[in-house]
Amino acid sequence: MNNFEFYSPTKFVFGRDTENNCGQLVKEAGGAKVLLHFGGGSVIRSGLLDRVKASLDKESIPYCELGGVQPNPRDTLVYKGIELCRNEGVDFILAVGGGSVIDSAKAIALGVPYDGDFWDFYCGKDIAKKAVPVGTVLTIAAAGSEGSGNSVITKEDGMVKRGTGSDLIKPVFSVLNPALTCTLPAYQTACGAVDIMAHVFERYFTNTKDVEITDRLCEAVLITMVNEVPKALKNPDDYEARANIMWAGMVAHNNICGVGRDQDWNSHGIEHELSGLYDCAHGAGLAVIFPAWMTFVKDHDIMRFAQIAVRLWGCRMDFADPKRTALEGIEKFKAFLTSIGMPVTFAELGAKEEDIPVLVNNFGIGEGKTGGFVALDKNDIANIYRIACKGN
Amino acid sequence: MNNFEFYSPTKFVFGRDTENNCGQLVKEAGGAKVLLHFGGGSVIRSGLLDRVKASLDKESIPYCELGGVQPNPRDTLVYKGIELCRNEGVDFILAVGGGSVIDSAKAIALGVPYDGDFWDFYCGKDIAKKAVPVGTVLTIAAAGSEGSGNSVITKEDGMVKRGTGSDLIKPVFSVLNPALTCTLPAYQTACGAVDIMAHVFERYFTNTKDVEITDRLCEAVLITMVNEVPKALKNPDDYEARANIMWAGMVAHNNICGVGRDQDWNSHGIEHELSGLYDCAHGAGLAVIFPAWMTFVKDHDIMRFAQIAVRLWGCRMDFADPKRTALEGIEKFKAFLTSIGMPVTFAELGAKEEDIPVLVNNFGIGEGKTGGFVALDKNDIANIYRIACKGN
Repeated sequence: MNNFEFYSPTKFVFGRDTENNCGQLVKEAGGAKVLLHFGGGSVIRSGLLDRVKASLDKESIPYCELGGVQPNPRDTLVYKGIELCRNEGVDFILAVGGGSVIDSAKAIALGVPYDGDFWDFYCGKDIAKKAVPVGTVLTIAAAGSEGSGNSVITKEDGMVKRGTGSDLIKPVFSVLNPALTCTLPAYQTACGAVDIMAHVFERYFTNTKDVEITDRLCEAVLITMVNEVPKALKNPDDYEARANIMWAGMVAHNNICGVGRDQDWNSHGIEHELSGLYDCAHGAGLAVIFPAWMTFVKDHDIMRFAQIAVRLWGCRMDFADPKRTALEGIEKFKAFLTSIGMPVTFAELGAKEEDIPVLVNNFGIGEGKTGGFVALDKNDIANIYRIACKGN
Repeated sequence: MNNFEFYSPTKFVFGRDTENNCGQLVKEAGGAKVLLHFGGGSVIRSGLLDRVKASLDKESIPYCELGGVQPNPRDTLVYKGIELCRNEGVDFILAVGGGSVIDSAKAIALGVPYDGDFWDFYCGKDIAKKAVPVGTVLTIAAAGSEGSGNSVITKEDGMVKRGTGSDLIKPVFSVLNPALTCTLPAYQTACGAVDIMAHVFERYFTNTKDVEITDRLCEAVLITMVNEVPKALKNPDDYEARANIMWAGMVAHNNICGVGRDQDWNSHGIEHELSGLYDCAHGAGLAVIFPAWMTFVKDHDIMRFAQIAVRLWGCRMDFADPKRTALEGIEKFKAFLTSIGMPVTFAELGAKEEDIPVLVNNFGIGEGKTGGFVALDKNDIANIYRIACKGN
């Protein structure tokens, strides 16, 4: 096991009607003027935003509003948010929405006290030293941004998607009401589920030996997802399934499952170029990329792939031919993705084989290599895109 | 799933040589004058205390010292610590040791800013509103106090053992170096392991339905313990096994495995009277009590006991007779305890059947009932002690 630090200071308030605690939570966090940040009309139509406002009103906490966050949130709105916060003297940002809204809120939080361009933190030019505190009211189980110090933003100029990470943008509190996710369309529910599973897989495939505790925690989250997601899709109002998925989504990405081990993260990077170029859902992109990545790298550690095949997918171990078990696991993963309505090929996603050179170029590793489990160069990345074209 | 709050703000610094970071960590936490709190001579003999002091010296942070914490830490030393902290102007308490030292440090932390008797918080007379911040350097994987807001203290007058809980005493940081546990005797290693497993079992046996994610997380910790503890006992210097056990010990008790579900905690209460009266190790007492408790309550939910028998102990499910599987699981647990050198009867522990009325009286529920999985009255408690006499 590697040396590590683990720090997850967010207070999670989980369950029915918990959004009514927002005012009290902002008060406890010392917030005196709030930016309410959100996406489209769904939080307005559902009445959620009004409930959050009522909760702030109850504590006499003033707020201003900035809606309009898009999926794959844009730098352009972040700049607007930074300006608004400065003009209005905002000292607390409350994100009401999914990962995109939260990531946008985190970017604004970093930008407000910073003299330069917030994008510096996303392109690696500078490291943040201050941030406005952020709270969240989560509306979709997916990105895990409610418990992470990560944020991913898309630069509209060139549609380049880049991420940053800092303890400063770990939410002070996150309100998780699973009932809010019951109205999500099946496609979004499934995309979120794939994102959650991908966060675990990125950590699971490691070269670090003797990581039994984190292996087992990873498997706990994955088993939960495989058991609960079909229930939520069959009966969207299944609060219990939604609750298990929502908490699994947090556990999958606050890094409790990933400490002390090298992690890979190539599949996320390879997918980011897909959703960057085609503006598709991140989870759908991951459904196409992750099995292709597994197919490409499996020989690096057949026994690890056999292990997950047995422990997650219930395959029988073929002790004479572990590779057969490993391959069966990947097939089961693809069958699961198909069963929950996810694409597993470029065509199903609307991506094009002829764009592969553009995707590889945008990935931007030049002559270098990247990845914690298997270090890949640009030709390997191209091969994974090619496998994803065919779906095997 | 029940509504819940989850808050685990401790910064964990895990791995080899991490005790050398103490000075920096105290500084980050704003500590200007430290109480170094510890137990017997082992932290002195091993050189650990000197390394911690050197780390504080490096940051020019002054400190005073209070050693002498005993297993089942006493109120008498807590009073000394409170007085010392007040006299010396201590604003940060650094516990160097195991659960007893950390629990004693937490009690001092609560007592220093409080006008009344710190015991008020342990006997339920008052709720803490302030505490001095606490940091820890852990030397045994067991109590989980390094990541919890709990503290258990024994009042010397009558040897009454009582606990308290508050977010205020969740450690600001905890330094976890698994190498420090390699010198532990086998008996203490095993006692710690039982404590960790017991923390999970108290949460696992629940009446709350549809708690797949926390069920699976509980099982992840338990499987890890069953796999790793024999390795650490066979080869005490097995750093990797020690590391897996140490992190499992934290995960077992910061409540990530227990949120959203009713928990039981009777076995801990029943054991507390044993270690209170006989001053035996808490883990050894739990090894005697937990299987007895399981035997007594199993019919309340045979399928839950069958589930853990299959998922943890690898029993084959007897679909025609699930009770047989449930019982086989309890037997496997006892066999595991015996295999790691733990007692499973009163006699092996040095406890006496004739003391049962005293134990039941000390348990002190009068004519009431207690317990989250099965509510037990004083006759039930006596029966569990009786089962523990015989070991089945």
